[in-house]
Amino acid sequence: MTGWVAIVGLGPGRETLVTPEVRAVIDEATDIIGYIPYVKRIAPRDGLTLHATDNRVEIDRATHALTLAQQGGRVVVVSSGDPGVFAMASALFEALEAQPRFADVAITVHPGITAMLAAAAALGAPLGHDFCAINLSDNLKPWSVIENRLRMAARGDFAMAFYNPRSRSRPVQFGQALDILREECGPDRLISFARNVTHEDQRLRTVTLGEATEDMADMRTVVIVGNSATRRVGGHVYTPRSAE
Amino acid sequence: MTGWVAIVGLGPGRETLVTPEVRAVIDEATDIIGYIPYVKRIAPRDGLTLHATDNRVEIDRATHALTLAQQGGRVVVVSSGDPGVFAMASALFEALEAQPRFADVAITVHPGITAMLAAAAALGAPLGHDFCAINLSDNLKPWSVIENRLRMAARGDFAMAFYNPRSRSRPVQFGQALDILREECGPDRLISFARNVTHEDQRLRTVTLGEATEDMADMRTVVIVGNSATRRVGGHVYTPRSAE
Repeated sequence: MTGWVAIVGLGPGRETLVTPEVRAVIDEATDIIGYIPYVKRIAPRDGLTLHATDNRVEIDRATHALTLAQQGGRVVVVSSGDPGVFAMASALFEALEAQPRFADVAITVHPGITAMLAAAAALGAPLGHDFCAINLSDNLKPWSVIENRLRMAARGDFAMAFYNPRSRSRPVQFGQALDILREECGPDRLISFARNVTHEDQRLRTVTLGEATEDMADMRTVVIVGNSATRRVGGHVYTPRSAE
Repeated sequence: MTGWVAIVGLGPGRETLVTPEVRAVIDEATDIIGYIPYVKRIAPRDGLTLHATDNRVEIDRATHALTLAQQGGRVVVVSSGDPGVFAMASALFEALEAQPRFADVAITVHPGITAMLAAAAALGAPLGHDFCAINLSDNLKPWSVIENRLRMAARGDFAMAFYNPRSRSRPVQFGQALDILREECGPDRLISFARNVTHEDQRLRTVTLGEATEDMADMRTVVIVGNSATRRVGGHVYTPRSAE
């Protein structure tokens, strides 16, 4: 009998942000598959096998999930945040498309709190009007695509949220992104850095683009750039609902 | 003693998508404030006053919340979805900015599952790469701003999610948006309509821009437009993680 694959989002870290729907799916699983730190968040129990793998093997991991499900497993693929936002859901469908032998496996996706919305909530409401979400990593797309998206987002006066702004293997590109943003938006635009959002060591910092430097972000940081109306009120940052 | 205001997201409708964090905040409340259908989702209990108001009175509602909190209330403002995405969080900060007498009220925002991510999960992974969220209502911004954002989003090859695509008072603008999208993206681009997402009568429909008509959307529909690589696999729609 064929089993199923459920792709779930564990939220950004705080356990009270995991939805009851995701908890219920995990309770039914025979197998959990995912990146090491996310699998570590799942409590071991009898009848549950934990399969933790390293980063950047998303298609192998997806194929493994489909294989176990076709053998009858009830397989949960765990992502942090929301599985449909720069996470495992797309990788699963890519693997399915490339391997039609898995066409009979039932697949469901269960949403989670994505990092940018947890960061926005911690900051106030910087994404309270039209906004874009951009993955700044060029592992899977050329930098020219990212540069064009930054310029189009700025010219549409969107607020922006950036995932994967900077890593050890990509130390300088975030500085290039800041240069593009300063050119398009000017030096006074607000930019917020939310590191380890919802974790105990969460750190929030808001500066202007003129003040921003590339070392303010790392791979555990979500970056939010305001639109032309974004401003501070008290200790919060917010974007009004209206535009002119 | 001054109380507090917590702005929470109830998710798109299915009760198992409400986070434990939001449940805990509601359990501490003395007052719940919000739009009628969202307040109806809160179970009455002793010591809890439910204040349900009609739509389009967001600033009055926010001022009411701040007033009750300043009098010592533990006030929860409820939004559907995520409170920071086209919902009450921005309205609360607007009211706070305009009325500095409330500066001593403690305000927190608690994220929820926003409609576009629940719709994306139900469809597959159409927002699996860079994307924009746009409110198509011109109640608080001129149509020219919306038109420019549609064009910039298309020229950046973003996937797009539209909130409030169409209402009885704005019956024709969604048709204009479709015309702009056909002009920018061509007739073959995929567009998905998710109505009453996560409710029992949820309805999903995916067509091409060439096939799309304005009557496919109403005020209870989230619309998702793919990027140039978005495609179908089996019964799902997904956007691959890579771009060329």
